[in-house]
Amino acid sequence: QRAAPEAAAQADKENGDAAGLAAKRSRTGGLGENRCRTVEEIYQKKSQLEHILLRPDSYVGSTERQTEERFVFDEQAKRMTRKKVEFVPALYKIFDEILVNAADNLVRCPSQDTIRVEVNKAKGYITVWNNGSGLPVQIHKEHKCYVPELVFGQLLTSDNYDDSERKVTGGRNGYGAKLTNIFSLKFIVETADSRSGKWYKQVWEKNMTSRNDPQLKAKTMEDFTQVTFYPDFARFGMTAMEDDIVALMRRRAYDVAASTHGRCKVYLDGRLLEVHSFEDYVSLHLPTDSFRVCQVVNDRWEVAVGLSDGSGFQQVSFVNSINTSRGGGHVNYVADQVVNAIMDKLSKQRGGGLAVKQAHVKGYLWVFVNCLIENPAFDSQ
Amino acid sequence: QRAAPEAAAQADKENGDAAGLAAKRSRTGGLGENRCRTVEEIYQKKSQLEHILLRPDSYVGSTERQTEERFVFDEQAKRMTRKKVEFVPALYKIFDEILVNAADNLVRCPSQDTIRVEVNKAKGYITVWNNGSGLPVQIHKEHKCYVPELVFGQLLTSDNYDDSERKVTGGRNGYGAKLTNIFSLKFIVETADSRSGKWYKQVWEKNMTSRNDPQLKAKTMEDFTQVTFYPDFARFGMTAMEDDIVALMRRRAYDVAASTHGRCKVYLDGRLLEVHSFEDYVSLHLPTDSFRVCQVVNDRWEVAVGLSDGSGFQQVSFVNSINTSRGGGHVNYVADQVVNAIMDKLSKQRGGGLAVKQAHVKGYLWVFVNCLIENPAFDSQ
Repeated sequence: QRAAPEAAAQADKENGDAAGLAAKRSRTGGLGENRCRTVEEIYQKKSQLEHILLRPDSYVGSTERQTEERFVFDEQAKRMTRKKVEFVPALYKIFDEILVNAADNLVRCPSQDTIRVEVNKAKGYITVWNNGSGLPVQIHKEHKCYVPELVFGQLLTSDNYDDSERKVTGGRNGYGAKLTNIFSLKFIVETADSRSGKWYKQVWEKNMTSRNDPQLKAKTMEDFTQVTFYPDFARFGMTAMEDDIVALMRRRAYDVAASTHGRCKVYLDGRLLEVHSFEDYVSLHLPTDSFRVCQVVNDRWEVAVGLSDGSGFQQVSFVNSINTSRGGGHVNYVADQVVNAIMDKLSKQRGGGLAVKQAHVKGYLWVFVNCLIENPAFDSQ
Repeated sequence: QRAAPEAAAQADKENGDAAGLAAKRSRTGGLGENRCRTVEEIYQKKSQLEHILLRPDSYVGSTERQTEERFVFDEQAKRMTRKKVEFVPALYKIFDEILVNAADNLVRCPSQDTIRVEVNKAKGYITVWNNGSGLPVQIHKEHKCYVPELVFGQLLTSDNYDDSERKVTGGRNGYGAKLTNIFSLKFIVETADSRSGKWYKQVWEKNMTSRNDPQLKAKTMEDFTQVTFYPDFARFGMTAMEDDIVALMRRRAYDVAASTHGRCKVYLDGRLLEVHSFEDYVSLHLPTDSFRVCQVVNDRWEVAVGLSDGSGFQQVSFVNSINTSRGGGHVNYVADQVVNAIMDKLSKQRGGGLAVKQAHVKGYLWVFVNCLIENPAFDSQ
């Protein structure tokens, strides 16, 4: 019996959710089964694409269903409501990669004014379209392929590796849209590049393992980029698109509309979303006519403060269009200033011996933050 | 101005700690600087090793210092004490990869009875030694190198890719020890394989970019595997080993001693740790003579319950030797049973109209769990 001490990359993980598994399985596992196998059978090396499909967790998050309370848009009430939703985080993530792409492009390209999102439940595909500058339709001399192929079809490629540049876009990690491609049965990119006067389309199939040659046309048209993908539902333990994940994806379209500083129209399934400012978005959350203060602080920060629903401090926040659902430094940065100002005022009104603590004040607040931050550090722990 | 919509892999990260950065930097960043660059300059592709060094976060965690309350061993009091420690999570992680390796080997190899850990602050190296079965010192026919080289020097290799096997070891992700190698200036593996009668040593330098040929000797000796590495402190914003990270690493040696079910002696810097059971370890945390119940439930689960220090529910837990510092399903699984039993008893003693809630009871508990779980799912979110 011999086996290599292959290391545990999950060391010191913050949250091991494993007891259920243990209960389901017998106590005498497959230990010692290495005995009869050759070293070639025991020690294996994967390609990176194989590895991503085999161990998705560290790339796209869990492929297991989970239930969480999240805000979703209630079509009847025309408001955001907090609801228990059951969804697979990995599927949500591969959608978000593409959506945040489109929002990023808005930051880079001032002329972009429209994003269109279609979540087609019946046919099981998602399309995200934007009319910012298209991708350069030209051959990358070093890698000998068109730039769109490099960007969407080859791992570890990025236009965002230079940390000496300060960027307020979300992507910088070299996986991004490729992960969506890898977890899709079909992935279609279409872009028009007015500079080169070319239209480009390319299709990948079977988890990016089957690449089709691109189609090109010389064509004078407005710039755009469109991504359509058919998620490989089986990899998420699903057979088709489900209502809860559709609701979450739809809410993300509202998020993007909210975070574009009113610069961009967002269409969802062909319908223009009536969210033209961060304040519009905040209003979808707070009770009608309830107290709130909204402020566009500068071209990178918008904040709003309202009253929490009584269950303690609440926050809804975005950094570079990325939804930071558990807050972070950017939220505390705002909340602490508001709390301190209220404490000061209370203290002056009531004199010494004030029994109110910061935590008490904070518990009544609902803070909304939409900001652009250069090269932000995200920490999922 | 054109730039690709490279995707944001950090989408929906739970905790964006970014406001500090924003405050430090000017509001007019480098946006639009792509204008004058060629596509070859803008769109880059990295090797995986380059990518890991450039974007360490998703592989080994943050390379920024953070301050957290953690248990460390107090040499004077001979007890675990909770202390504010400042450390770089990525450095802690690359140490843990190697340590959990040695603990994993114990699970696989019943004859292993000793682990030796040396944290040499003055010389800036760490050594972890175990006397379990050595790695097979033979050529892997497919990859044309010795197995130890495949295991420690090539990315995406693992002996743990077969999910149909049920394993209770920590590693299964193909990065593991390679990450330690990549974040080290020097990384030395030595192993003796009694089956082949061979001793093997190999050295990598400069972040695994410089590989030396292995040394081999025909030699009859007891099996062992030893890893020594000199962390590349500059990559963690450090110039040398610091007291707090040393304290954390030392505590992990106690953790391993605790989680080996009394089967393995653990030496730290040459001294045998007096932790021969999980109960010994629990006693290092709870006040002397305070209430506690320790139970070895079966060969995979050990649990203990004591009283919390009054600040609410506390837990110390391990799944397959991995420290789950924020608990998880395995901890709730134990805590809920204890809480329910106490509630039942209270309810019977006091009759109806009981005002005590589950959360109240739980807040007085300190739960310790040491378990082996097959193919556990870790979720850092």
